[in-house]
Amino acid sequence: MTTTTFKYQYETLNVKIYPDGVAHVELNRPDKLNSFSPGLFEDILQCFTTMSKDSDIHAIVLSGSGRMFTAGIDYVARQAFAKQAHLNYLQRSISSLEKCSQPVIVAMHNGVFGVGVDLVTAGDIRYGTKDSYYCVKEVDLGLAPDVGTLQRLPKIIGNDSLVRELCYTARIMKSNEALQCGFINRIFDTKEQLIEGALKTAHEIASKSPVAVISTKHLLNYSRDHSVDEGLDYIRVWNSAMLMTEDIPKSIEAFVTKTPAKYSKL
Amino acid sequence: MTTTTFKYQYETLNVKIYPDGVAHVELNRPDKLNSFSPGLFEDILQCFTTMSKDSDIHAIVLSGSGRMFTAGIDYVARQAFAKQAHLNYLQRSISSLEKCSQPVIVAMHNGVFGVGVDLVTAGDIRYGTKDSYYCVKEVDLGLAPDVGTLQRLPKIIGNDSLVRELCYTARIMKSNEALQCGFINRIFDTKEQLIEGALKTAHEIASKSPVAVISTKHLLNYSRDHSVDEGLDYIRVWNSAMLMTEDIPKSIEAFVTKTPAKYSKL
Amino acid sequence: MTTTTFKYQYETLNVKIYPDGVAHVELNRPDKLNSFSPGLFEDILQCFTTMSKDSDIHAIVLSGSGRMFTAGIDYVARQAFAKQAHLNYLQRSISSLEKCSQPVIVAMHNGVFGVGVDLVTAGDIRYGTKDSYYCVKEVDLGLAPDVGTLQRLPKIIGNDSLVRELCYTARIMKSNEALQCGFINRIFDTKEQLIEGALKTAHEIASKSPVAVISTKHLLNYSRDHSVDEGLDYIRVWNSAMLMTEDIPKSIEAFVTKTPAKYSKL
Amino acid sequence: MTTTTFKYQYETLNVKIYPDGVAHVELNRPDKLNSFSPGLFEDILQCFTTMSKDSDIHAIVLSGSGRMFTAGIDYVARQAFAKQAHLNYLQRSISSLEKCSQPVIVAMHNGVFGVGVDLVTAGDIRYGTKDSYYCVKEVDLGLAPDVGTLQRLPKIIGNDSLVRELCYTARIMKSNEALQCGFINRIFDTKEQLIEGALKTAHEIASKSPVAVISTKHLLNYSRDHSVDEGLDYIRVWNSAMLMTEDIPKSIEAFVTKTPAKYSKL
Amino acid sequence: MTTTTFKYQYETLNVKIYPDGVAHVELNRPDKLNSFSPGLFEDILQCFTTMSKDSDIHAIVLSGSGRMFTAGIDYVARQAFAKQAHLNYLQRSISSLEKCSQPVIVAMHNGVFGVGVDLVTAGDIRYGTKDSYYCVKEVDLGLAPDVGTLQRLPKIIGNDSLVRELCYTARIMKSNEALQCGFINRIFDTKEQLIEGALKTAHEIASKSPVAVISTKHLLNYSRDHSVDEGLDYIRVWNSAMLMTEDIPKSIEAFVTKTPAKYSKL
Amino acid sequence: MTTTTFKYQYETLNVKIYPDGVAHVELNRPDKLNSFSPGLFEDILQCFTTMSKDSDIHAIVLSGSGRMFTAGIDYVARQAFAKQAHLNYLQRSISSLEKCSQPVIVAMHNGVFGVGVDLVTAGDIRYGTKDSYYCVKEVDLGLAPDVGTLQRLPKIIGNDSLVRELCYTARIMKSNEALQCGFINRIFDTKEQLIEGALKTAHEIASKSPVAVISTKHLLNYSRDHSVDEGLDYIRVWNSAMLMTEDIPKSIEAFVTKTPAKYSKL
Repeated sequence: MTTTTFKYQYETLNVKIYPDGVAHVELNRPDKLNSFSPGLFEDILQCFTTMSKDSDIHAIVLSGSGRMFTAGIDYVARQAFAKQAHLNYLQRSISSLEKCSQPVIVAMHNGVFGVGVDLVTAGDIRYGTKDSYYCVKEVDLGLAPDVGTLQRLPKIIGNDSLVRELCYTARIMKSNEALQCGFINRIFDTKEQLIEGALKTAHEIASKSPVAVISTKHLLNYSRDHSVDEGLDYIRVWNSAMLMTEDIPKSIEAFVTKTPAKYSKL
Repeated sequence: MTTTTFKYQYETLNVKIYPDGVAHVELNRPDKLNSFSPGLFEDILQCFTTMSKDSDIHAIVLSGSGRMFTAGIDYVARQAFAKQAHLNYLQRSISSLEKCSQPVIVAMHNGVFGVGVDLVTAGDIRYGTKDSYYCVKEVDLGLAPDVGTLQRLPKIIGNDSLVRELCYTARIMKSNEALQCGFINRIFDTKEQLIEGALKTAHEIASKSPVAVISTKHLLNYSRDHSVDEGLDYIRVWNSAMLMTEDIPKSIEAFVTKTPAKYSKL
Repeated sequence: MTTTTFKYQYETLNVKIYPDGVAHVELNRPDKLNSFSPGLFEDILQCFTTMSKDSDIHAIVLSGSGRMFTAGIDYVARQAFAKQAHLNYLQRSISSLEKCSQPVIVAMHNGVFGVGVDLVTAGDIRYGTKDSYYCVKEVDLGLAPDVGTLQRLPKIIGNDSLVRELCYTARIMKSNEALQCGFINRIFDTKEQLIEGALKTAHEIASKSPVAVISTKHLLNYSRDHSVDEGLDYIRVWNSAMLMTEDIPKSIEAFVTKTPAKYSKL
Repeated sequence: MTTTTFKYQYETLNVKIYPDGVAHVELNRPDKLNSFSPGLFEDILQCFTTMSKDSDIHAIVLSGSGRMFTAGIDYVARQAFAKQAHLNYLQRSISSLEKCSQPVIVAMHNGVFGVGVDLVTAGDIRYGTKDSYYCVKEVDLGLAPDVGTLQRLPKIIGNDSLVRELCYTARIMKSNEALQCGFINRIFDTKEQLIEGALKTAHEIASKSPVAVISTKHLLNYSRDHSVDEGLDYIRVWNSAMLMTEDIPKSIEAFVTKTPAKYSKL
Repeated sequence: MTTTTFKYQYETLNVKIYPDGVAHVELNRPDKLNSFSPGLFEDILQCFTTMSKDSDIHAIVLSGSGRMFTAGIDYVARQAFAKQAHLNYLQRSISSLEKCSQPVIVAMHNGVFGVGVDLVTAGDIRYGTKDSYYCVKEVDLGLAPDVGTLQRLPKIIGNDSLVRELCYTARIMKSNEALQCGFINRIFDTKEQLIEGALKTAHEIASKSPVAVISTKHLLNYSRDHSVDEGLDYIRVWNSAMLMTEDIPKSIEAFVTKTPAKYSKL
Repeated sequence: MTTTTFKYQYETLNVKIYPDGVAHVELNRPDKLNSFSPGLFEDILQCFTTMSKDSDIHAIVLSGSGRMFTAGIDYVARQAFAKQAHLNYLQRSISSLEKCSQPVIVAMHNGVFGVGVDLVTAGDIRYGTKDSYYCVKEVDLGLAPDVGTLQRLPKIIGNDSLVRELCYTARIMKSNEALQCGFINRIFDTKEQLIEGALKTAHEIASKSPVAVISTKHLLNYSRDHSVDEGLDYIRVWNSAMLMTEDIPKSIEAFVTKTPAKYSKL
C-alpha cells in the first residue's frame, strides 16, 4: 500500500507518499530523541515548502520515529540560535506547517518538549497516544517561547488559565488533560493505532475535492486573524476565484450516482 | 400561554410570539427536511431583520419542524447560488441572526447539515437533543463553507484541532462531542424538553432589562472582533449613551423590594 | 515561612510577601463580603501598579478573606459610579491585574459576583474551591458589564454559547461547570487547599527566570490582541531586547548541574 | 450626443446616460439650493446603488443644478434626523458613492456646505470652478460631522493642520486653497467648462476595460483601510478572480493595432 | 482683555486664560532656548492633562518665549532619558497634547528642533512665522525619534518622500517648504502677528458649541487610526451619547435670530 | 571617488559601491528602455535582498541608464506573468526596496511607466528631472495595478483625487505636478544634476549613525501600517533593543567636539 518518493529525501526526515496523495513525514533523529538540530529546522522548512506547491500531495501526517516525538531543542543549537539574526529563520521553519497549503495532521507519542510544542501548534489537527505528554519548556531555559507557542496555543485551545499555567511553570500536561482542553482531539492506545488513525483521517481528506480542502485551510487561517465581517468579505472574493473548477459539478454527480468523485489536480 | 402575531407571516417559517416578548421561530419545510430554498434564505433575512427593530421582542428561539433541524442546502438551490453575485445575499441572510439586536437561542434536534451549521453558529446560544448531530458538509460539495462556518466556528468553540477535522473531513459530530467541545452547552433527552428548555431560557432573558440585554449582545459581538483595550474604550462610549434609561433605578428598586421590575420598551 | 512587608499597607487589602518574591494579596472587607467600595477599587489599582514595578515580586496570588470571594459592587458605590466620568477609572483598576508585569493567580471560594467576575478574568490563572460559584450579575442591575467581562471572558474560555447564556441570564455557574469550560483549571476541596495550591504554583513560578516569566506574560497579552504573524514579528524584537540578560546561560548551567538557578533581579 | 434613460427617474436628481456608459447625475432642487431633504438622501441611495449593479454604466459625473452645488442640510430635515435611529440610513446614502462600483467624478461650483462636504468626500475625483468654496459647517449646528467628513477628509488630502482648522472653525475654504491642498485637483473658469472637463474625464474612463477600472476602484478602497502587506495579499486573490476576462488580450491587441479596444460588459 | 489663572502655575510654562476660555500656554525657558528639561516634560504633562478636564477651557494656543520655539532636548536630559524605563513617560508627556480634549494650536517662530517636532506634531493646528524652520534632529544623536515624529508626521503631511528625507538627513526645512507640504497651514511675517493669528483662530473655536468641538477632535483622532467603516460605526454611538445636549437647538436658534449662541459648559 | 564591487554583478543592473557605503544601482537594459523582463525582476530581488543584510551599505540610489527610467513591463513578460502563481513573486521583487534595511533614493528621468511606478513607490525618497513624467499604465492593459501602486501611492502623496484620476485614466503626470503633489520632492534640470543630487543625499545619510538610520526606516514602515499608539508602544521595545550600541555617546561627542562621528558597522 505504501510507496516511496524520490523528491523528498532528507537527512533528518523520513517521507513516504501514498498513491492517493497522502504524505507521511517522520522526524528521524531517533538516537537524539528527535531534538531540533539546525539540519532539522532546515529540512522541515524545505519539506513543507516543497509539498505546499506539490499538486500531487493532498494531506500530510507528521509523526516522530523512535522513543519520543521530540525532546525539543539541542542545547548546542540553542546557543547558536540565541542570536536574533536567526530567529526569523527558525520562525519560518516552524510556520511552514501553517503556510503549507494542505492540512497537516500531527501524531504525537511520548514526550513533546519545548520547540516541539511550537511545531505542533502550527499543525492543523493533533492526535496523541495515551502515554503522550506535553511541556512548554522554554521558561526553564531562561527565555519566552519565541517560535509560535505564545501566538498559537491560546488560539487553538479554549482555556487561557491552563495556557498560562503551562507556559509560566513548564509543568507537564498529560494526554487526558490535553484531550480535555482540546490540545489533541483524539487519544489512541498505542503508537501503531495513532499512526493508523492519523493516516485514516489523511486518506479521508485526500478523497475530497482538493480545491475545497485547500480553500478551507486557507480561509480558516485567514479568519483566525481577522474579524468575522472581514472573513466573510474575503471568502466571497476567494471563492469566486476558486469556483471555476469542475469540482462542484463532479461532487454533485458523485453524490447523485453514489460513486466516488475523481477530482483533477489543482 | 401562547399567542400568534400577524406581523410575522412567512411561507417557510412558523412564528409565535409570547406575551412577554419571546418569539419562537420554526424552520417550516418539514417535507423537505427544512433544506434551504431561496425562499427560506429570504424569509430568515426578513424575519430577523424585522424582529431586530421590534421593541416588543426580547428574546428569540429558533428550532426546526419535522424530522430534522435542517438537511442543509437544496442541490437545485446550490446551482443557482454558485454565482458569486448571490453570495453576499446569502451571507446577509445567515448573518441576520448575529446582527439581530435580541439574543437568539438555537434549539437543534436530529441532523444539522452544511449551511445549517453556518446558520446556527450565527446564533447566540445553542442547545441540542441527545440524538442531534452536526456535519460541516460543504467539502463534499467541492467547495469551502462560504456563509459563516469558517469565520465563526473557531471563535465559538475552543478546539481548533476539532474544527479543522470537522471541516476537512465532513464527518459527523454527535451530541456528546458537541457538548464536550462547547458547540452546544446543554443536552436534552427529547425534542419537547429541548424546546421547553430553550423557551425557559428565553423567558428568563425576557424578564431582564431590555437595554441591558441588547447592550450585552452588541458589546459581545464588538469585543469578539477587537482587542481588549478597544473593547473597553468602546463600552465607555456605548454605556454613556445607554445609561440614560430608567432601567438601573428600576432594577435596584426591584432588588430591594424583591418584586419583579417592569421595564419600559426601548 | 511568611514575612510581612511595609510597602504594601492598604485598608481593604491584606498583603504578605514571601522571601522568594511571592506576594499574597487578600481582598479584606470580610464583613461586607468583600464587595467593591470606592476604596477597594483604589487599593487594587495602587497595589498592582506598585507591584508591577517591584523587581522583588515574582508572582502574585489573589484571594478573598471571610465567607466569600466577593459579592460584587456595593449598591451605594454603583450609584456613584453610574456617571461615565468614573468608568475609565474603574476599568483601569480592574485592568491593573492584566497590566501587572508578574503573573496573577486568582484563588476563589464561595461566591464571585458581578464586578468580581470582571476582576478575575483580568488575572492569569484561576483556581476555585468545590463550593465556588460564579455569576455575571450586571444584567440584573439593568446594565451591561462594563469593566472587562464582555471583553475577556470569551477570550479565556472556549464556549461562546455558555458565555452568552451566563451574561444574558445572570444565572449561577457552579465549580464543576467552571472547570469543564476552562474558566478555572483546578478545583480544590477546601479553601485551605485552594490557597496552598495557588501558593505552590506561585512559588514554582517564582523559581524561574524572572525575565522569562515576565516576557511570557507580556507576549501572551500582546498575542491575544494581534494576528499570529504580528505576534511573531513582535517577539523577535522583544526577545532581542530581553536576551541580553544572563538568565539563559544560568538556566543552562542549572540544567546541566542539576542545581537550582539563582537569577538576578530585573 | 446625449440620451436619456428610463431607469433613472428621481424627483430630486436629474440623470442622463451617454451611449458610452457615462452617467451624468445632477442634484436637482435648484430652488432650495440643492439642500438635503429626506427625498434627496433617498434618491442618492437608490440611484448609486442601482448604477453600481448596472453593467451599462462605466463612469459617473455628479454636479449640482442652479446657483450652488449644495447648501447642505435643511433645518427641518436636521430636526428629524437628529434621532440616532436615522443616522445609519444617512450614512448609507452618503457612502453609496464610495460603494458604487464605478468611479464618481464630482463637479462642484459655488457653495458646498455641511453634508455636501460629507457627500463629495465619498466621491473618487473632485473638480471645482474658480468661484467654488467649501465649508464644513456642522460645528455651527452644535454637532460633529457624522456622515463621513471626519472619516474621509483626512485620508484624501495631505494637510491635517488644515483639516482640523476647517472642522473646528467652519471657515470657508476657497477654490485656490482647495486645489493647493488636493481637495480638488483641477480648477475650471466656468461651470460649463467644469462640466465639460468632468465629462471628458468620464468618457476617457469609459473607454477603458471595465473590469480594470472597477477593480482599481475596489482595490484603492480596500487598500486605504488595510496595511500595505494586506493590500498586496488581497490583490493577488482579487486579480486571480478577475483575470479570467478577455480584457487583457483585447487591450494588448488594441495597443499593437493602434485601434480602440471593444470591451464586453461585466 | 487678558486675565491670569491661579490653577495653572508652572516653572517652565507661562499660562494665560482669556475670559472666553482660550488658554495661551508658553514654553518659558527662554535662556535655555526652551530646550526640554525633565521639568518641562513634567509641566507639559500636568498642564494639558489638567486642561483636558477643565470645562472652562475651550481652545489652547501653544507658543515659545524668547528667541526660538525650542532647541529640542538638553544633552544632560538625553543621558538620563536614554534608559528605556523613562521612555513611556516621555511619550505620555508629548501625547498629552493629542489626548487633550480641546484643540491645540501651535504657533512656532524661529527654530523647532528634535523633540520639539515630536511635540508639535501632537498638536491640532500648526502656524509658523516666515523665519521659522524645522529639524528632525534625532538621527544626529545616533537614535531614531522615539516620542512621536515617526508615528504622526507621515499622517499629517502628504509627502512621504519629504518625510523620509527630513528624518534620514536631519536637514532643515524652512517655512515655505513647511507651508507647501502642509506641515503648517499659515505663515505670518512676525511673531506678534503669529500669536495674534493663532489667538484669533482659538477665539473663533471658543465661540462654537463645546460639545461639537470636543467631539470633532475626538472623532478625528479615532478615525485616523481606524478604517472608514469603523469610524462611521463609532460616530453613530458617540453622537447618540453626545446629542442629548441643548447645543443643537441653541445653535439653530442662533442661526435663525442672527445672535451668538450661549452654550453651557460641558 | 568611485569603486566597484565584486559582490553585486547582475545582467540587468549596474552597481557601484562608494567607499562610504553608498550604493548606486542602475537599471541597465537601455536598448529595451529598461523594461521589466523576468531577469530584471529577479536581479532586483537579489540585489536589494543582499544589500539589506550587507552592513557595508548605508544608503542606495536607484536610477535608470539610457533614454528613460523604465518603459514598464515587456508585453511578452506580461503574458507569462498573467498567471496568478507568479504574482506573489513579482510583488516580492518590487517590495524588496521597501523591505531593504537601508534607505533607497530613486532618481528618475524621462518616462516612468506602469510597473515602474509600482517600483518607485516602494522606494523611500523620489527625485526627478524636469523632463520626467509618470504614467500608471495598467488600466490600458485591461487590469488593475497589482504589484504595489494601489497600496502605496495613496499613502505617499496627499491627494486622493489625483491618485484616482491617474489610476483610472492612465494619463501622464508631468514633473511639475509630481512635485506639487509630493510624488517627488525635488526637481533637477538635467539627468547629471539629478544623479549628483541623489548621491549627495545618499552620502549625507551614509555619514549618520547606521543604527539610527536603519531604525528610522524600519519604524516609519511599521508606523504607516499601525495606529499611533501601537507605533509608540513598538518603538519603546525596538529602541531598548537598539540603544545598546555606542552610537549615542559617539554622536554626542561628535557634536561637542565638532568632528564627524565614526560609527561602527551594525
